[in-house]
Amino acid sequence: MSDINVAMIGYAFMGRAHSNAYRQVTPFFSPARSPRMKVVCGRTASEVERARAALGWDEAATDWREVVRRKDIDLVDVCTPGDSHADIAIAAAQAGKHVLCEKPLANSLADAERMLAAVERAGVAHMICHNYRRAPAVMLAKQLISEGALGEIRHYRGTYLQDWMSDPAAPFNWRLDRTRAGSGALGDIASHSIDLARFLVGEITEVSADLKTFVPSRPAPKEMVDVTVDDAAMALVHFANGAIGTIEATRMANGRKNYNRFEINGRLGSVAFDLERMNELEVYFDNDPPHLRGFRTIIVTESVHPFVGRWWPPGHVIGYEHTFTHTVYDLLEAIAGGTTPTPSFVDGVANQRVLTAMERSATSRRWESVN
Amino acid sequence: MSDINVAMIGYAFMGRAHSNAYRQVTPFFSPARSPRMKVVCGRTASEVERARAALGWDEAATDWREVVRRKDIDLVDVCTPGDSHADIAIAAAQAGKHVLCEKPLANSLADAERMLAAVERAGVAHMICHNYRRAPAVMLAKQLISEGALGEIRHYRGTYLQDWMSDPAAPFNWRLDRTRAGSGALGDIASHSIDLARFLVGEITEVSADLKTFVPSRPAPKEMVDVTVDDAAMALVHFANGAIGTIEATRMANGRKNYNRFEINGRLGSVAFDLERMNELEVYFDNDPPHLRGFRTIIVTESVHPFVGRWWPPGHVIGYEHTFTHTVYDLLEAIAGGTTPTPSFVDGVANQRVLTAMERSATSRRWESVN
Amino acid sequence: MSDINVAMIGYAFMGRAHSNAYRQVTPFFSPARSPRMKVVCGRTASEVERARAALGWDEAATDWREVVRRKDIDLVDVCTPGDSHADIAIAAAQAGKHVLCEKPLANSLADAERMLAAVERAGVAHMICHNYRRAPAVMLAKQLISEGALGEIRHYRGTYLQDWMSDPAAPFNWRLDRTRAGSGALGDIASHSIDLARFLVGEITEVSADLKTFVPSRPAPKEMVDVTVDDAAMALVHFANGAIGTIEATRMANGRKNYNRFEINGRLGSVAFDLERMNELEVYFDNDPPHLRGFRTIIVTESVHPFVGRWWPPGHVIGYEHTFTHTVYDLLEAIAGGTTPTPSFVDGVANQRVLTAMERSATSRRWESVN
Amino acid sequence: MSDINVAMIGYAFMGRAHSNAYRQVTPFFSPARSPRMKVVCGRTASEVERARAALGWDEAATDWREVVRRKDIDLVDVCTPGDSHADIAIAAAQAGKHVLCEKPLANSLADAERMLAAVERAGVAHMICHNYRRAPAVMLAKQLISEGALGEIRHYRGTYLQDWMSDPAAPFNWRLDRTRAGSGALGDIASHSIDLARFLVGEITEVSADLKTFVPSRPAPKEMVDVTVDDAAMALVHFANGAIGTIEATRMANGRKNYNRFEINGRLGSVAFDLERMNELEVYFDNDPPHLRGFRTIIVTESVHPFVGRWWPPGHVIGYEHTFTHTVYDLLEAIAGGTTPTPSFVDGVANQRVLTAMERSATSRRWESVN
Repeated sequence: MSDINVAMIGYAFMGRAHSNAYRQVTPFFSPARSPRMKVVCGRTASEVERARAALGWDEAATDWREVVRRKDIDLVDVCTPGDSHADIAIAAAQAGKHVLCEKPLANSLADAERMLAAVERAGVAHMICHNYRRAPAVMLAKQLISEGALGEIRHYRGTYLQDWMSDPAAPFNWRLDRTRAGSGALGDIASHSIDLARFLVGEITEVSADLKTFVPSRPAPKEMVDVTVDDAAMALVHFANGAIGTIEATRMANGRKNYNRFEINGRLGSVAFDLERMNELEVYFDNDPPHLRGFRTIIVTESVHPFVGRWWPPGHVIGYEHTFTHTVYDLLEAIAGGTTPTPSFVDGVANQRVLTAMERSATSRRWESVN
Repeated sequence: MSDINVAMIGYAFMGRAHSNAYRQVTPFFSPARSPRMKVVCGRTASEVERARAALGWDEAATDWREVVRRKDIDLVDVCTPGDSHADIAIAAAQAGKHVLCEKPLANSLADAERMLAAVERAGVAHMICHNYRRAPAVMLAKQLISEGALGEIRHYRGTYLQDWMSDPAAPFNWRLDRTRAGSGALGDIASHSIDLARFLVGEITEVSADLKTFVPSRPAPKEMVDVTVDDAAMALVHFANGAIGTIEATRMANGRKNYNRFEINGRLGSVAFDLERMNELEVYFDNDPPHLRGFRTIIVTESVHPFVGRWWPPGHVIGYEHTFTHTVYDLLEAIAGGTTPTPSFVDGVANQRVLTAMERSATSRRWESVN
Repeated sequence: MSDINVAMIGYAFMGRAHSNAYRQVTPFFSPARSPRMKVVCGRTASEVERARAALGWDEAATDWREVVRRKDIDLVDVCTPGDSHADIAIAAAQAGKHVLCEKPLANSLADAERMLAAVERAGVAHMICHNYRRAPAVMLAKQLISEGALGEIRHYRGTYLQDWMSDPAAPFNWRLDRTRAGSGALGDIASHSIDLARFLVGEITEVSADLKTFVPSRPAPKEMVDVTVDDAAMALVHFANGAIGTIEATRMANGRKNYNRFEINGRLGSVAFDLERMNELEVYFDNDPPHLRGFRTIIVTESVHPFVGRWWPPGHVIGYEHTFTHTVYDLLEAIAGGTTPTPSFVDGVANQRVLTAMERSATSRRWESVN
Repeated sequence: MSDINVAMIGYAFMGRAHSNAYRQVTPFFSPARSPRMKVVCGRTASEVERARAALGWDEAATDWREVVRRKDIDLVDVCTPGDSHADIAIAAAQAGKHVLCEKPLANSLADAERMLAAVERAGVAHMICHNYRRAPAVMLAKQLISEGALGEIRHYRGTYLQDWMSDPAAPFNWRLDRTRAGSGALGDIASHSIDLARFLVGEITEVSADLKTFVPSRPAPKEMVDVTVDDAAMALVHFANGAIGTIEATRMANGRKNYNRFEINGRLGSVAFDLERMNELEVYFDNDPPHLRGFRTIIVTESVHPFVGRWWPPGHVIGYEHTFTHTVYDLLEAIAGGTTPTPSFVDGVANQRVLTAMERSATSRRWESVN
């Protein structure tokens, strides 16, 4: 079958990760339709050209509005900061393009809902890039929960801890600006914990949340600039199925570099995952013989495990970026097969509803429904 | 100096742990005044006698009111369920005895305050048995924080997870009865997390909490009995010094046996502790050279570490019960020296205030001040 | 039944550990015949008296020859350095006393064999104190192997690593003197690895070994003194059942405090143990479902686990010294029941044969049979 | 500068890993001269063509003799089984091509020496693919040792454990055939442990080794076939600098998938590495303050760490195959700069000398010099 021509808008950290996925998906996964890295788009011509060469795209462009309308483009991949997601994604959908969008879907729930409406109206494939769902260990956790191997779920305990903003002297950047980023740790990393909670446990119905900015201003090249987002977010949550949970995200946890960890306790067992050891899943079964119960550390690199058999033999670990390759693979297959990829913009909107309820709760200082 | 004559009321799990501490403190710590295990007291004569023989007390008795008034008793140790703490401790104080009391101090804040008033009026030594403060690794964490080695504290993350009530078929017992136990996971184990938070970070000023009972009734010998306490408790907390935290306790976390874990993140470093590996403290320093930063796992068994040099050489680990021996040692030294042991009933009352605020918040569904 | 009257010769590190075991065994294990801590014996009157008071013995004595003949003594416990084991143990046996002896049994194979002959001739109970056999996690490993749960054993990988002699400035002491100690890391700690190998895998038939002294002389109060023992020992071993293994012991492994670790690989599974985390056993089963295979970390504190249910509830860990209590308990039960405790002097002699073969091999630089 | 045209002979497991490295090195490392994936070569036309398409090579070929003489080829990459390494590498060198060769260099020391002579005579760049040297954590260990941060090295403890041959029913394959593979676990994986020992500690001067075949024959499609190589290899080793070590490799250690682990103890500290957690290095410093000594787990993903800053932000882990990309990068830079890459065929020969001495020792049953 023909290639899928991709236009990627944005080329920073996420752009590099997505480019890698397009480069790697064919040799390792042989998708029915391979991606063709057609055009990368950004604001500054010289920098886009440099990115094009480094990341391996055919063309560089500076006007995304033009790019998303190009006849030869099948898929638009939105890797820009959150404040431009809505405009780009909606324009792409209106032009009949499939859309992959970085998370969080938008900086406001209203924008997110408009985006969803646009892709549904256009009938295109749409996906939000919550790549951690496709870490093989997370997929294995999902499989166990789906099979009922953990029984009724009771507890979700999600923490996404980083430390890159711990030092008050760390400079200001766009992720600390509410206008660009929407929020801080909340939208940047708590959103991942929320997505994993929704993926693995189910819908969140209400939250009691708190946001905290420890360092109120940061040095910029010329002056101190106010930080207008949260450094840390924490919440109690209720799930529709009766489970309860805690979700915490921070950029101030010294020593935790990318500690996207969850533990889930069900009636029949538990699982725990930590992104810093992303090739492992810890699993406990209550129905093991009483003298042999213990968390087993499964190295999720066997051919029977999700995705990972396409890479290397058992025990040969994969890295962070592989989760994007898996995500892109499933997106390509969905496009080729005419099915709906997940997580879609529906999930993006649902995630945004939770983020919004958390922000409301942080202000109202009481539980807030997710709606 | 003369021995300190001890009367212990109650002889179940905590009675065994306290008896062991009295037995072990002299050979290993040579306190200025040794404890004499004078009398153990309980309701059923035959069972007390059996406990007396097994645990090594001189005498057995069944009337605690008589025991706490005995001239030859110096210290009354209250190991009964929470509903009788106040009566026993107050009577002991009125009789001029020093009092050691198990946690939580009482089943209500009013009772706890009456207890504190009684011991203060009587001028006796008073201590609440939050033994985990005196795990050497916890003492080391305290030392680091006190020295400023972690800098300004930002995050406390306390979880006390157990799984002994996970099975709905697990039988009813007094710890599930609100009248006897006051509360469930909240008073039983969250109280430990709260004590460690207060010990290590500082006073908690407000909380948003939630309580959950997953299994509403349990089998008793004759019939199903309603569970009137929480199976799980979770809370967001604010500290007076600006730190924020999460506290969670549950009896339903399959695979977690005695997972009394905390992580504290400060501006300059972090510490983490898990009671299941109680001889270890994980410590991270932000001012280590950039290429050499990492959590170090300190085996807290060196002679330079708190308490532990009195036991065995480096690397020879100690157990759960040693924390009681350390607690009793400090109590004996305080009595001998006429100083105030900690944690005292002041801490017991402060802890109760937090528990009470959490219960209020679970009902009001909003943040509640601790007062 | 009547008490068993104990005389303990020696009162240093091991004397403290044994005293603790006699003190703790009755309250926690209720043996059929309780030990009575009758007399402790050493060379210097004032120091023995101090030890007597600190450790809780009835009497202090300075002449072991007299002590081991006393009519009121049932059991002689030999806790002295290795060079006096044979004399004391043989005299005790000849006086009809049961004998517990610290390891290694003697400083020479000939002495060890004389000791065994003496106790067998006398018909007394005899035991060598390889206490690590009775760590609950080690007992669980033994149980799994005995049941065949690991299948045919192929690999034993034993390392006993410490670091207390790593610094060349660390002072000379008796354990570095061949005359007193027999050997260095070899007899002191490799002997434990050998005992665990024999206990868990089976008899060792031949060895290729190497001994190394990194620091040839050490400071004593007046002068530098030659180190006449090994700092480190390492060996390849063959077992009678076809398994192969490595055994390594050193006092120079910086960071390893008491790292008595083994891993055993069988056809059907594996186990791993580390004394620094002595409440845990890692177990792997090859017949778990392929996607769920992983080492499980069993916290060996359940009532169904060996010994440990007598102490505390699940998850409440025990310490180093508890292994001695378990050892003494089994010895007391064996004496009360007229059965043979293990490990006995038969094991002590077998262990010595392996040590001797290792020393021979270190000299001959070739494989040596154990005989 | 111009591209470096690559011909790769062989396209199985190693061919896939090398292809990936050529694909990834340019976008992430921007080498002075980029590799061009010119031609892949194998015996069966249809399969080579499939590999070409899957792995992204320009051309497929079946006659390696022709390929290595092609004018347009700069670098020949030898990924075939060990029995053809010598012929291919020597022919390539004679044709003036740079040579990258998989390990072990050859199936015999004589062949290895001929290969070295050929590349030296030809004056081409030559490298053996001991890719684990370039795991960032291993590079960090090297850096610490080179700086003297660990002091005089005393112990090397290398184990490379796998379990894919544990089941006697696992089918026969070429790696079990002495003619094709040269040896079993010895050449396949012990060779990696030996390379790391040489890289990190220094030259090995003598060995006492043992080889074991647990399963003497294996099922092939038609019949049982004799296994003519070792399932497991173990050795004691002496280093020129006075350090001592153990090296063990096995394919029968159930639960160990790719457990290429080493621990090195020096006078001033220790390091430990495990390939299954390849993004981490454990480091202990004896000169940390006494109460703060412990193994620190460094997540080797910081920009200050070797290689890894070219990939993703801190805490975003990399995988197995990245070690090949690093290796290829350094080879390309060496070729571009006219310098000598390491490890070169000199290291390959040195490694082979150790392997050969181990085989001699396993037969002679005594220590053998490496020469």
